[in-house]
Amino acid sequence: MSKLIDFQTNPSKYRHWRVDYAGEVANLYMDVDEKGGLFEGYELKLNSYDLGVDIELADVVQRLRFEHPEVKAVVLQSGKERVFCAGANIRMLGGASHAHKVNFCKFTNETRNTFEAAGAESGQYYICAVKGACAGGGYELAIACDHIILTDDGTTSVALPEVPLLAVLPGTGGLTRVTDKRKVRRDLADVFCSLEEGIKGKRARDWNLVDEVVPNSRFAEAIAARAKDFAARSKRPGGAKGVMLTPLQRVISDNGSLIYSSVEVEVDRTKRVATITIHGPKRAAPASMDALHAEGAETWILRAARELDDAILHLRNNEFEVGVLVFRTQGDPALVAAHEKLILENGSHWLAHEITLYWKRVLKRIDLTSRSLVALIEPGSCFVGCLAEIIFAADRSYMAEGDFDGDNRPAATVTLTAGNFGPYPMSNDLTRLQTRFLGEPGKVDEARATVGQALEASAANERGLVTFTLDEVDWDDEVRIFLEERASFSPDAMTGMEANLRFPGPETMETRIFGRLTAWQNWIFQRPNAVGAEGALKRYGTGIRGSYDMKRV
Amino acid sequence: MSKLIDFQTNPSKYRHWRVDYAGEVANLYMDVDEKGGLFEGYELKLNSYDLGVDIELADVVQRLRFEHPEVKAVVLQSGKERVFCAGANIRMLGGASHAHKVNFCKFTNETRNTFEAAGAESGQYYICAVKGACAGGGYELAIACDHIILTDDGTTSVALPEVPLLAVLPGTGGLTRVTDKRKVRRDLADVFCSLEEGIKGKRARDWNLVDEVVPNSRFAEAIAARAKDFAARSKRPGGAKGVMLTPLQRVISDNGSLIYSSVEVEVDRTKRVATITIHGPKRAAPASMDALHAEGAETWILRAARELDDAILHLRNNEFEVGVLVFRTQGDPALVAAHEKLILENGSHWLAHEITLYWKRVLKRIDLTSRSLVALIEPGSCFVGCLAEIIFAADRSYMAEGDFDGDNRPAATVTLTAGNFGPYPMSNDLTRLQTRFLGEPGKVDEARATVGQALEASAANERGLVTFTLDEVDWDDEVRIFLEERASFSPDAMTGMEANLRFPGPETMETRIFGRLTAWQNWIFQRPNAVGAEGALKRYGTGIRGSYDMKRV
Repeated sequence: MSKLIDFQTNPSKYRHWRVDYAGEVANLYMDVDEKGGLFEGYELKLNSYDLGVDIELADVVQRLRFEHPEVKAVVLQSGKERVFCAGANIRMLGGASHAHKVNFCKFTNETRNTFEAAGAESGQYYICAVKGACAGGGYELAIACDHIILTDDGTTSVALPEVPLLAVLPGTGGLTRVTDKRKVRRDLADVFCSLEEGIKGKRARDWNLVDEVVPNSRFAEAIAARAKDFAARSKRPGGAKGVMLTPLQRVISDNGSLIYSSVEVEVDRTKRVATITIHGPKRAAPASMDALHAEGAETWILRAARELDDAILHLRNNEFEVGVLVFRTQGDPALVAAHEKLILENGSHWLAHEITLYWKRVLKRIDLTSRSLVALIEPGSCFVGCLAEIIFAADRSYMAEGDFDGDNRPAATVTLTAGNFGPYPMSNDLTRLQTRFLGEPGKVDEARATVGQALEASAANERGLVTFTLDEVDWDDEVRIFLEERASFSPDAMTGMEANLRFPGPETMETRIFGRLTAWQNWIFQRPNAVGAEGALKRYGTGIRGSYDMKRV
Repeated sequence: MSKLIDFQTNPSKYRHWRVDYAGEVANLYMDVDEKGGLFEGYELKLNSYDLGVDIELADVVQRLRFEHPEVKAVVLQSGKERVFCAGANIRMLGGASHAHKVNFCKFTNETRNTFEAAGAESGQYYICAVKGACAGGGYELAIACDHIILTDDGTTSVALPEVPLLAVLPGTGGLTRVTDKRKVRRDLADVFCSLEEGIKGKRARDWNLVDEVVPNSRFAEAIAARAKDFAARSKRPGGAKGVMLTPLQRVISDNGSLIYSSVEVEVDRTKRVATITIHGPKRAAPASMDALHAEGAETWILRAARELDDAILHLRNNEFEVGVLVFRTQGDPALVAAHEKLILENGSHWLAHEITLYWKRVLKRIDLTSRSLVALIEPGSCFVGCLAEIIFAADRSYMAEGDFDGDNRPAATVTLTAGNFGPYPMSNDLTRLQTRFLGEPGKVDEARATVGQALEASAANERGLVTFTLDEVDWDDEVRIFLEERASFSPDAMTGMEANLRFPGPETMETRIFGRLTAWQNWIFQRPNAVGAEGALKRYGTGIRGSYDMKRV
């Protein structure tokens, strides 16, 4: 699987999904093209999916937010007659590398989280209408929705058959949503997750695996009624006009480098370091939300978020040997502040709200990227508000002290804004500064008192906002030595260490999915019982059951 | 490593630890015998440890609770001149099986949790006095204490060098205690955990890695002062007389079966099932706490806890292929209730309090056992209070309906007591019933309304206390089919599934250690970068660095 994976798509290219827009309600049909797999060697039968199918879904979900502000309820259903969705494609999983499997699961989880949050955050509710077998990743699609309607046709069931059938865990939050969202009694969850054939009808409702069971004859009627209910609950404004997510400007070089309009990525495969430079806006902030709306996808604050998001996904899935992501910024701090201010001060405007939520998602995507993250705060940089969040998302940061000889860019500064105190929480529901100062909560207030001030190195260091400050004499050597050392450590140990250190304090369903469930899944994905030559994933479909080492660990 | 691991020991057998008792303060010296490893092939140099060293420590900690009620402060220090503790022995880890490594880490974690809780729960505080290198598991010993004093002798440091040196994670809660207990700022934690050489002196205090740094000349004086402070803080009664933990009655058979005075374990290696039968008390409860004290370690409620604890540890570490633990009880429910009542109603008596806390630990040990747990509630059983907790610790339960033909034992019942509503919380700090009914909290109140009533199958089922009820016609077949099926699943997948389903809802530092940190560690312990022929663990000490696959996952 060495083909370049592209996370950009648009409706004209969809092979697996179809959306019918009808005012407040959108009908989203999953109708996977068997021949449309991202790689060779498998067919996407029975509405099973691979990363390519999920890239389209993520695109649908994103466009629903930006291009279709009028939609208040999305009905997710199958475009096929006899099956809802059979989950992730087993042959694809059987043939994929460990790194691909893990990053595939991470992306599908992020997409589920996005549509799961859409109702509460944005008044765009997802209703899942299940007819036909709904197994594994199929059921995980369903439980990420706000409401599940199951037809009682005598055959339709919901199931998480991964453990008995494939010797792996459901990979997209299934177990955690069963216990933490659906709050299924743990012994019933144990029964459910051990049953290949799943659970049908009334029992599925009694165990809270679904919200509603309706006779097949009333299925369509029940869906329509529920969509109407949810749409009525939405506070989304009617009559708003969407913003088209036009194609990104992007040039990908053979050496792995990427150039977008406001983001540049330089990949050094020998050193295993990618340097991501975000350029601040070149022009003044739009004068009003109407002006911002008129700029559409071109407006800096939306464009930079889209480009940064794509860059992270690209690196995660196409550059497995890059161990360190270095974040730099260059630009005018005042302009960054002005662009961000417009969206933060217009939170009641649907588009400002959506852009803020998108930055929240992009910053979370950075938190959850299993590469070492470093912020270099150099002369000429513009770490302000949403860009300053990247410093706090990083595992550590280095800040240049004062002017550098022969460099006429202004001294490095960090400027906090209202953006650093609420709108972009991490998966643990704390801000990055709250997380950073878990042991010294007073420091958050100290930081807040500096809002709007451009803090130079000593001031930023005193307030605990950066890890190290270096003068120009030490800068190059210290940074180089650190990068060399970091890139030499075992990637696995770094992944485990960072996954633990980045998320101190409280847990949420989301952190439990990425921190606990994913870690167990990664372990199992590595075990011969699942992925060995005689393991269940490899033997699936051969009629021979996996041969297991019976030792418990 | 196929030698039988015995978790029973006593001070006359210690090779690695020494305790000096001096009234309120006990001095606990770690002085590991290099030649005293549990297995062949390594020497325990530099106060490094293996499971055998930790079994002794667990024994010390347990005896401090029961035999030494007068001790209010324990000073943990090294018995060697130049080293505090070098952590888990690397050669032992390099040679151990995956299952041994994981269970070793689990047991050391449980022991750390036990002494960590001793201060708050029991007024027995642990103070760690660090002189000499304190690395890896050595520092993890320190951060499980209530207070760390570091000597400022110019060479003594604290370190977690596992990631840079060994390509694994600290295995005994290190990362989680750094972020969640010590609340070290996450970027400083990143620096600390990447530094082989660790951190010394004032900087260790500034980063909150230790509580106090004192000049070497005042080290002894500072230790004494701090021990006095903590002892003064303790509410432990003076003048109480301890209870000797006499050797357990235990017969181990070659077929793996164990017979204790109140617990029997039958191991069926072919079916991969162990059946643990707990016998209720044969005699009336002691009439008073004085009478209970006079019975000492022989009193049923303490004896049964010790035997059950030993049985679980034995099965975990000696019977890796047993995938299912079946819990049965037999006895008079009224007697179990009476014995438990005495300790629950005398919570202010130190011994009653310690026995209650011990049941809490044993029940947690069951929760954290990575085997499928099943409770069979049969005629003649006595699932009452602390024993009923086992039903709720189990992944599922089967309860017999009414009398069985030709069986003159009374019909199966379940009786809840005050014990089911507070004194034995899980690692998540909820009771097992609160955890069970996370989605229907009203059910906890419904259950509470039945306290003292012997609930037959239909009543227990109606209240959601059991998973399935079966009549005598179905009992044998249904149970047999379930056990066969369960034991046939991939052990790894079951471990991952159970670790997720057993702990819904809130997280604590403890659940994060066992759920998140451990899962990442298990994954890394399986990766070639650590354990492969060219991995860091295997190459340790050869002077050649581990050779890593640089792909990030």
